[in-house]
Amino acid sequence: MQTMLLAGLVLVLGVMAAAGAEPVDLIVTRGYVVTMNATRQIYPDGAVVIRNGHLIAVGPSAVANGYAAAKVIDAAGDIVMPGMINTHTHASMTVFRGLGDDVPDRLQRFIFPLEHKLVDREVVYWGALYGMVEMLEGGVTTMADMYYFEDEVARGAQKIGMRGVLGETVLNQPAPDAKEPYGGMEYARRFIREFRGDALVTPAFAPHAPYTVDAAHLRVIQKEADALDVPILMHVAEMPDEVTRTRKEFDKTPIEYLDSIGLLTKRLVAAHCIFSSDSDIALLKARDVGVAHNMVSNIKSAKGVAPAWAMFNQGVRVGVGTDGPMSGNTLDIIGQLGYVAKVQKLWNHDRNIMPAVDVVEMATMGGARALHMEDRIGSLETGKLADLIVLDRNDTTMTPFYDVYSTLVYAASAHDVRTTVIQGRVVMEDRKIRTVDVGEVREHMRALSGKIAASVAQGIQ
Amino acid sequence: MQTMLLAGLVLVLGVMAAAGAEPVDLIVTRGYVVTMNATRQIYPDGAVVIRNGHLIAVGPSAVANGYAAAKVIDAAGDIVMPGMINTHTHASMTVFRGLGDDVPDRLQRFIFPLEHKLVDREVVYWGALYGMVEMLEGGVTTMADMYYFEDEVARGAQKIGMRGVLGETVLNQPAPDAKEPYGGMEYARRFIREFRGDALVTPAFAPHAPYTVDAAHLRVIQKEADALDVPILMHVAEMPDEVTRTRKEFDKTPIEYLDSIGLLTKRLVAAHCIFSSDSDIALLKARDVGVAHNMVSNIKSAKGVAPAWAMFNQGVRVGVGTDGPMSGNTLDIIGQLGYVAKVQKLWNHDRNIMPAVDVVEMATMGGARALHMEDRIGSLETGKLADLIVLDRNDTTMTPFYDVYSTLVYAASAHDVRTTVIQGRVVMEDRKIRTVDVGEVREHMRALSGKIAASVAQGIQ
Repeated sequence: MQTMLLAGLVLVLGVMAAAGAEPVDLIVTRGYVVTMNATRQIYPDGAVVIRNGHLIAVGPSAVANGYAAAKVIDAAGDIVMPGMINTHTHASMTVFRGLGDDVPDRLQRFIFPLEHKLVDREVVYWGALYGMVEMLEGGVTTMADMYYFEDEVARGAQKIGMRGVLGETVLNQPAPDAKEPYGGMEYARRFIREFRGDALVTPAFAPHAPYTVDAAHLRVIQKEADALDVPILMHVAEMPDEVTRTRKEFDKTPIEYLDSIGLLTKRLVAAHCIFSSDSDIALLKARDVGVAHNMVSNIKSAKGVAPAWAMFNQGVRVGVGTDGPMSGNTLDIIGQLGYVAKVQKLWNHDRNIMPAVDVVEMATMGGARALHMEDRIGSLETGKLADLIVLDRNDTTMTPFYDVYSTLVYAASAHDVRTTVIQGRVVMEDRKIRTVDVGEVREHMRALSGKIAASVAQGIQ
Repeated sequence: MQTMLLAGLVLVLGVMAAAGAEPVDLIVTRGYVVTMNATRQIYPDGAVVIRNGHLIAVGPSAVANGYAAAKVIDAAGDIVMPGMINTHTHASMTVFRGLGDDVPDRLQRFIFPLEHKLVDREVVYWGALYGMVEMLEGGVTTMADMYYFEDEVARGAQKIGMRGVLGETVLNQPAPDAKEPYGGMEYARRFIREFRGDALVTPAFAPHAPYTVDAAHLRVIQKEADALDVPILMHVAEMPDEVTRTRKEFDKTPIEYLDSIGLLTKRLVAAHCIFSSDSDIALLKARDVGVAHNMVSNIKSAKGVAPAWAMFNQGVRVGVGTDGPMSGNTLDIIGQLGYVAKVQKLWNHDRNIMPAVDVVEMATMGGARALHMEDRIGSLETGKLADLIVLDRNDTTMTPFYDVYSTLVYAASAHDVRTTVIQGRVVMEDRKIRTVDVGEVREHMRALSGKIAASVAQGIQ
């Protein structure tokens, strides 16, 4: 039936082309189009028209009249919306997903020893690619990722066709990809030189955290990031110890400390910011810093709840992140939406705050703002890059359909995403990833996780 | 491939039958069998054998040797485990799902007026059946439900083949199925007479709450429930107002008040119990009361977090519930597991509590205990009723697979359930519900929700 409709449409468009219609690459039509533009416009029977990776028309389905597309996706009955933006992850850590959950002191007992023993180029590449398969399947079109051998993540992103702000980790101790403390500096420089200007990959510095990178190195990173015009990704105000330490050493909050050494700028994407006071929030706003709110990871570790609702209301650039899959286990953003809505209500003792529509904004335009890419992604608007997703409304939980935002936040799941388009390219269609051989990626993941399980069984040393 | 294997197995079993093998109804074999028995035994290559709705063998796959089954399910690579138990819901309210989310005073503005205007036998039947489709698809095999026209829910449960403890609501105001205050009493008596002794349906009294049913009526309900040997379902310690009121009127907590009038017994399944002190918990334990922990519903309404971890540790009969879909939006239990684990950690400021294995126990054996049915359901053990589910492990988030409980709680979703068996009957196979025409149920749901949307658009009066 759908095939017949498609065939019919292709025919109609072919006739129009013959009559002098304007050629384009892709049309997604007859969908329930949620734009997430400034007025939160919705077209219940809408279309988007794509050429050269950009949206050239967004509106009622009639907006596609006069265009002849190489490919037409009939989204009748489906939701069409901007791709989700994952503002903080470590995708390669899929190889460790589910290891050491609910175990005390997992960072020292599992994560660091496992990383030192096992993380190499192969683990980073296949782990990241596996994570990207999960993200595309779940409707994530852009990720901010920080890890080691980040050039391998970049190669994976290019291969699968996913957008990424990718940061090479710098820290004051030996790392899987750098034997010397701060060896990541030189690695990061090479990585940034290699990928700067790429259409999908934005390379970045990723100083690990205020407590693992000293002020001198942070200043150098800021200076070089300014010169190269690249972002800085960092864990900020995440750890109780970090708060105690900056209070003791500098009599400041972590955010005040970073400001005092010049790190709070529009380049920074600060992950977590759990421990943010009202004046910290004002600072993040004044300095135009991006914030990644990782609700699931933060509550699973019982650290607390970042004041993301206050940040959002005060105009801070706050988006949603999953954190790595050893912290939050899954990498899709739709699965985070319900947590953000419900736990913010709980934490603030108010069922009326953090309404669904604002959660969807945080996950789309909010993420774009956090990455300082709101002029290019985050909403379906003419002139923007064509990063979008199509969600099936046939799943049982998607009916009734009284309010699309409520449905997305409280009832939808990553499994409802049918089609994912990044920069005009259909990277997943009808749940089939079209850019990589998923079977091959899985085989690599199974082999790697088998090795890891054996290593853990023998005792990690 | 699977068909070939199945054909092969059927052949082998046929040969065995010819050689005098014992005939049974169903074998589920070659699965990763999670029993949830007292020692939490797992058979990585296991089987269960079913006859007359009961498990007659559970163990390594070889345990099925010597049996010839009318049907064999090859669960190679899948997880086989007890069905999930939803200890508190109002399934018919699927018709209202997503209405009035994030709106102040929704109970008075939406729920009560909508129920008064719109709830009739048709809404209850089709709404409940739609909710049961969602539950079977999500691996729920038993529900505790309370609503109006509960006989319609019971007829739906019989039709679709789902197990239920179903309570007819009694309260001190006119209701959709009873014009007079407390008219539910007589309705409940008729309902209980009609369904007592049914193989799937356990009829029950459902006094709405301590603040909507007075002590005199509660005492009558207790007396009649004792005489008829049926359960009592009630909302308990859910509302801040309820706590204030029982303190003011009786100088007691809601739980102490119920104890003072003789309602705390092994018949009671108390939903919510958010506001439970340490001594309340001790009372619930001493009186052998069942508790339904509805995490998602409770945090979405910002009411607070029930001390379910403390209850679990102190041996209270505590299970997991979804509440109605106007409160928690979805009805599957797998989607609750992550919330229970993570929010209990957050609320108790301890990442090591409420480990995944205990969450899975709460959702299976815990639910069985809450309903006082632990001798019949909740685990895969010889002699118990054959209520079980098969989960596909091919979903991207299900790899790696280091720990089955971590995978189930932190990474799995309702969509991973492939097959649902209730009392030995395959009610869903390969995600296809086999007992009702899902298309027909959906058409009814769409028609009803269309009517409701029109009614809301005109203003509910």
